[in-house]
Amino acid sequence: MKHIYERQVYYYETDRMGIVHHSNYIRWFEEARMLYLKNIDVDYRILEDMGILVPVLSVSSKYRKSFTYGDTFRVESHCTFFNGFKFDYEYKVYNVQTGELCNTGTSSHCFLTKDMKPLNVKKTYPQLFEKLDKGYREQL
Amino acid sequence: MKHIYERQVYYYETDRMGIVHHSNYIRWFEEARMLYLKNIDVDYRILEDMGILVPVLSVSSKYRKSFTYGDTFRVESHCTFFNGFKFDYEYKVYNVQTGELCNTGTSSHCFLTKDMKPLNVKKTYPQLFEKLDKGYREQL
Amino acid sequence: MKHIYERQVYYYETDRMGIVHHSNYIRWFEEARMLYLKNIDVDYRILEDMGILVPVLSVSSKYRKSFTYGDTFRVESHCTFFNGFKFDYEYKVYNVQTGELCNTGTSSHCFLTKDMKPLNVKKTYPQLFEKLDKGYREQL
Amino acid sequence: MKHIYERQVYYYETDRMGIVHHSNYIRWFEEARMLYLKNIDVDYRILEDMGILVPVLSVSSKYRKSFTYGDTFRVESHCTFFNGFKFDYEYKVYNVQTGELCNTGTSSHCFLTKDMKPLNVKKTYPQLFEKLDKGYREQL
Repeated sequence: MKHIYERQVYYYETDRMGIVHHSNYIRWFEEARMLYLKNIDVDYRILEDMGILVPVLSVSSKYRKSFTYGDTFRVESHCTFFNGFKFDYEYKVYNVQTGELCNTGTSSHCFLTKDMKPLNVKKTYPQLFEKLDKGYREQL
Repeated sequence: MKHIYERQVYYYETDRMGIVHHSNYIRWFEEARMLYLKNIDVDYRILEDMGILVPVLSVSSKYRKSFTYGDTFRVESHCTFFNGFKFDYEYKVYNVQTGELCNTGTSSHCFLTKDMKPLNVKKTYPQLFEKLDKGYREQL
Repeated sequence: MKHIYERQVYYYETDRMGIVHHSNYIRWFEEARMLYLKNIDVDYRILEDMGILVPVLSVSSKYRKSFTYGDTFRVESHCTFFNGFKFDYEYKVYNVQTGELCNTGTSSHCFLTKDMKPLNVKKTYPQLFEKLDKGYREQL
Repeated sequence: MKHIYERQVYYYETDRMGIVHHSNYIRWFEEARMLYLKNIDVDYRILEDMGILVPVLSVSSKYRKSFTYGDTFRVESHCTFFNGFKFDYEYKVYNVQTGELCNTGTSSHCFLTKDMKPLNVKKTYPQLFEKLDKGYREQL
C-alpha cells in the first residue's frame, strides 16, 4: 500500500540557481506525511487539539535531480518504524513528467505532551495507537 | 529619530528570476518592526507571554528596484499612527551598496487578547501604552 | 468567468500565533495568478523560456479572518487591468469550510525583457497579447 | 579555527507548535556556509558570475532542543572534506542564551558548470581551489 502525494512546484520555491531550493524538500516531506496521516484517518489538527505534539527528531534528504517551476512532483511516503513512542518515515520524490526518482529522504518523530514530555501513545491514547499501528503494519 | 534595520540578503530569498522573491519584503518589514519595538523597550516575546497578540490588519509593498544575493538592505521603519487600539507603520527599504530607495511599504496592526478579542492597551496595560505612545510621539 | 484556486493550508505556513503567517497570502496570490495564466493558455515557464519576465510592481493584502492548519482556502482571482504593458489583479480568499471571505488583495505587474527593459507585448508577442487580452476581456 | 554565525530567530520562522519549524535549520546551515565561504575570501555571488554552481547533494539535521522567537542561535560550521570536486560540512547550532547544543547537521556539495556538468575546480579555477583547500586544511 503506497501513500502518494502530488502537486506542482510553486514559483516561489525556486531560487537563483533556477531550481527548487533544497530546503523546500523538507517541507514537501511534511506535506506528504500529513496526507499519510489523513489516509490512515489521523487528523493532525485534532491531535494538536488533544494536546499531542509530534516534533521532528531528525531529517535527511539526498538530491539526485533537481525540480524547477513547471514540474510536478510525486512523493511516495512510507512509515518504516512505529512503536508507540517514535516513528520513522521514508520518502521518494519523483518527477511526474519524466518518471525519474529525483530525491529520497527520511524523518524521525516522537510524541510529546503540550509540556514537551514524552508520551506513551499506546497507554494514553489506545485508539490513536491502533490507527498508527494498523497504518504501519499494512505497509510491511 | 530613525529606526534602522540592516542585513544581507540570503540566497534562499531569491527566486528563478534571479532576484529576491517579492513575498520576502513582507517578512523584512516584520524583522524591522520587531527591531523598532525592541528599540522602544517592548519585547514582542514578553507581549505574547502576557497574552497579547498583535496581528496584521493590512500590508502593502511597492517594488522600485530589485535586490539579489550579495546585496545588503536597510529598512527604515516609522510608526505613523498609534491610539492604543491600532498602529500603523511605514517602511523604506534601501540598497546599502548603492544607497537607492528600492521598496516602500506599510502595515497596520491591532492588539488582541489570546481569545482574539480587541484589547484596549491604554486601559489594560498602561505601562505598555506609555512605551508605544512615547515611541510614536518621538518620531513626529 | 471566475478563476478559482483551492488547496489546504500547510502546517509550515502557520506561525507561533497559531495562524497562517501574513506573508504567505502574497505567495497564495502568486499560486492563484499562475493558475489564472494557465486557464487562459499562458504557461509562465514558457514565457520565461521566451525571455519574458513578469515582475511584481506592487502588492497589497487586507486580513479579515485568519486561516490555520486544517483549513482549506479558495482564491478567486480576477484581472482588473491589462494594456499590453502592465496588468493588475484582485484576489478574494475564502475559507472553504465556512464560506467566509477572509482576505482580499491586489497586485500589479509589468513585462520585462531578460535585460530588465520594458516590453511591449502587443508589438513583440502579438499571440501572447491576444491571449492575455482575451482573458482580461472575458471577465469584464 | 572556528567559523561562527549568529543571529536572532525571526517570528516568521516559528510554527503553530510555538517553535522554529524544522525546515528552517536547513536554511540556517546555508546562511552559515555562505559566511564560511566569505571568511575564506570566496564570494558566492562572484562564483555564480563566473558560471559556477554549488548545488546540495545531501543534507541531514538532528533536533535535540527547539528554538523559538526571542532566542539567538549560533552556528559553528566546519568543512569536513574537500577534494576539488566535492565538499562536506558539519554544523553545530547552539542557543546563545543557554549555551546548549540544540541541533547538529551535515551537508554535501559539488561544483557544476552552468550546463549542470561536473567541474574540476583544481584544474579550471586553480586560485579558487587554493582558497577552498586552504580553508579546509586550516580546520584540520
